[in-house]
Amino acid sequence: PPGPLQPHGLPLASCRSFSNNKIQVELDESSGVAMMKFKSPPVNSLSLEFLTEFSISLEKLENNRACRGVIITSAVPKIFSSGLDITEMCGKSVEHYGEFWRAVQEMWLRLYGSSMVTVAAVNGSSPAGGCLVALSCDYRIMAESPKFSIGLNEAQLGIVAPFWFKDTFVNVVGHRIAERSLQLGSLHPAPEALKLGIVDELVPEEKLMERAAAVMAQWLALPDHARQLTKTMMRKAVLDRLVAHREEDIKNFITFVSKESIQKSLRMYMEMLKKRK
Amino acid sequence: PPGPLQPHGLPLASCRSFSNNKIQVELDESSGVAMMKFKSPPVNSLSLEFLTEFSISLEKLENNRACRGVIITSAVPKIFSSGLDITEMCGKSVEHYGEFWRAVQEMWLRLYGSSMVTVAAVNGSSPAGGCLVALSCDYRIMAESPKFSIGLNEAQLGIVAPFWFKDTFVNVVGHRIAERSLQLGSLHPAPEALKLGIVDELVPEEKLMERAAAVMAQWLALPDHARQLTKTMMRKAVLDRLVAHREEDIKNFITFVSKESIQKSLRMYMEMLKKRK
Amino acid sequence: PPGPLQPHGLPLASCRSFSNNKIQVELDESSGVAMMKFKSPPVNSLSLEFLTEFSISLEKLENNRACRGVIITSAVPKIFSSGLDITEMCGKSVEHYGEFWRAVQEMWLRLYGSSMVTVAAVNGSSPAGGCLVALSCDYRIMAESPKFSIGLNEAQLGIVAPFWFKDTFVNVVGHRIAERSLQLGSLHPAPEALKLGIVDELVPEEKLMERAAAVMAQWLALPDHARQLTKTMMRKAVLDRLVAHREEDIKNFITFVSKESIQKSLRMYMEMLKKRK
Repeated sequence: PPGPLQPHGLPLASCRSFSNNKIQVELDESSGVAMMKFKSPPVNSLSLEFLTEFSISLEKLENNRACRGVIITSAVPKIFSSGLDITEMCGKSVEHYGEFWRAVQEMWLRLYGSSMVTVAAVNGSSPAGGCLVALSCDYRIMAESPKFSIGLNEAQLGIVAPFWFKDTFVNVVGHRIAERSLQLGSLHPAPEALKLGIVDELVPEEKLMERAAAVMAQWLALPDHARQLTKTMMRKAVLDRLVAHREEDIKNFITFVSKESIQKSLRMYMEMLKKRK
Repeated sequence: PPGPLQPHGLPLASCRSFSNNKIQVELDESSGVAMMKFKSPPVNSLSLEFLTEFSISLEKLENNRACRGVIITSAVPKIFSSGLDITEMCGKSVEHYGEFWRAVQEMWLRLYGSSMVTVAAVNGSSPAGGCLVALSCDYRIMAESPKFSIGLNEAQLGIVAPFWFKDTFVNVVGHRIAERSLQLGSLHPAPEALKLGIVDELVPEEKLMERAAAVMAQWLALPDHARQLTKTMMRKAVLDRLVAHREEDIKNFITFVSKESIQKSLRMYMEMLKKRK
Repeated sequence: PPGPLQPHGLPLASCRSFSNNKIQVELDESSGVAMMKFKSPPVNSLSLEFLTEFSISLEKLENNRACRGVIITSAVPKIFSSGLDITEMCGKSVEHYGEFWRAVQEMWLRLYGSSMVTVAAVNGSSPAGGCLVALSCDYRIMAESPKFSIGLNEAQLGIVAPFWFKDTFVNVVGHRIAERSLQLGSLHPAPEALKLGIVDELVPEEKLMERAAAVMAQWLALPDHARQLTKTMMRKAVLDRLVAHREEDIKNFITFVSKESIQKSLRMYMEMLKKRK
């Protein structure tokens, strides 16, 4: 169906592109659908800069009445997003840790609470914070390759997913699977992720964007107002819980990440990553 | 097993029929099982009159010690119930809207909170409020025809299922499936409804009543008291939530349904239904 | 990986056995894994003595830094545990009932809240309280024989599973399955238990201990601290609920079990069990 502000037949004129550094956003005003592509090689880490740009992009689209839905995907081969950027949590000041964590919260509050339809087209691996981005969308389609995996694997690094990562995960897969997967810090290959309900469907990688557009059209066939109120009704309890405990959650993160034992294991992890390259 | 008040071998004498307009109720005192058949053509709409009769029938059976279980089904071919009667929500007074909504709440409070065993024999399509009736029973058996569908499709009409519809749905299918199905206003064909857990089993339509009786016998083999306390323990939180917010929920409904935009879309929907006939 | 306190190559010296009456505990300090075997024939009933020994054993292991995980299984053929010992609930004093119930609570608080990895190797039937023990572990492996069944079948005896049995069950299988299974007091044969999610996997009985050890090794590959905090985050709400209502829950049990009708049905059940032998 046509977007509310644009006549048909103007595909070129109706496509507006935001110029950003880390995320490419293209809004097709004729369909009302924005395409958001993570393009921060090598692994689309959620750095402070990336998160800030992500939140601002979401806010712009949210306030643009021509935009009704967003498809989130990656422009980097084989990776959707590797999650929080560990360099932001290593050897920085307490103020920096606080600013970084607030940006993580802000991104999630905007994405999980978005009134737009959000579809994740997961075209690569998606550990930790990358998995959170996918879990926060309305619908998840993943490229069917068993080489790609997804999961909240924080425990593998000796860190703990915060309660609102957990709440988001439980809402998607239920308590039993979330409990096991979080404790084991599991990264689930795509076929297993489908079986557990972490993603909603798998398609061959070359069909991913086509399928995402079709799913989006199905969701946009509904009147926005009723769909938005329904989404709010489903997600409000979990969103409100972070809003009510936001400062406390930031303090917890700062205390945790400032520990020498955690700094040490993060440094070791970063060095391991460097050697891998 | 024989009912507590009636000797065996008196099938005619033990069968008591209530004379109602919209719902036929027959209690077999020898088995303790009541059959409740919706007979309000063309589509068993939940009108104020229907809902009032439904609640009174449930109350009578609840207070009849000879009755331990109720099988709910339809006497109208191809439809279980089409849900709330839209004519009750269109062009009526604020007082009427309030009275109607209180009757919807009353029906659900009685059915979801019933101490009797309740089995839904879903022998036709069951959208919106019709789906709520089925979801509120202890067990759902559906005729296996893919022509019959079931779901809380309120969003399709531009309206929002109230929180206690949602709570009932989440208790049956979990958060992820409820969130998607409610946002899309999905009507699920019987085979899909089984897969999602919306109904507990499918049988060929001609075997539906036989299977419902067998399931009922299995549930009635348990001692009533322990089963009833267990049911209360499972459902109390969700029932209490409506009881605590009942007046507020009525006010919300009145405000919502009185909006000109909602009146307009309901009128359009009714005209579409008329043309279909 | 080796345990923190013992060098390699000393398998005999590193195996410490606690001498108990009802439960055999062997800690392999080289792996950090304790084996806990119920050996209270004929059916591993959870008597006051058994429960007290269970809680003390768990406490000892919890406080032993050499122990990181516990595998719980049975030394009695064909039965994991038959659940609460009915003789403790029959013809005893009010004081005794209170002491017994506090011991049931204590066992669950220690097991469900354990910071160790807990794996149930369910090598026989496991009704009622026996099922609770399995449900309270982190992971459940069951011998695949359909002769073995598991479930919270309290309703079959005319009694009601307390709210924290229910909460534990809902966390494992979700609301819909818990509601039906609890109301019917179902005992599920192993293959059905797997399908419903009551157990996590089935293996041939002769491979059970081998598989339990492999699963334990997988869980112990994670750093303890992050895993423990994650487990606490998942289970705290349900644990806190009993802690907040513990005395009230004991009073409820005493009132319930002191009723003449309940005493009568428990006596009848015990006589039935005696005749079976």
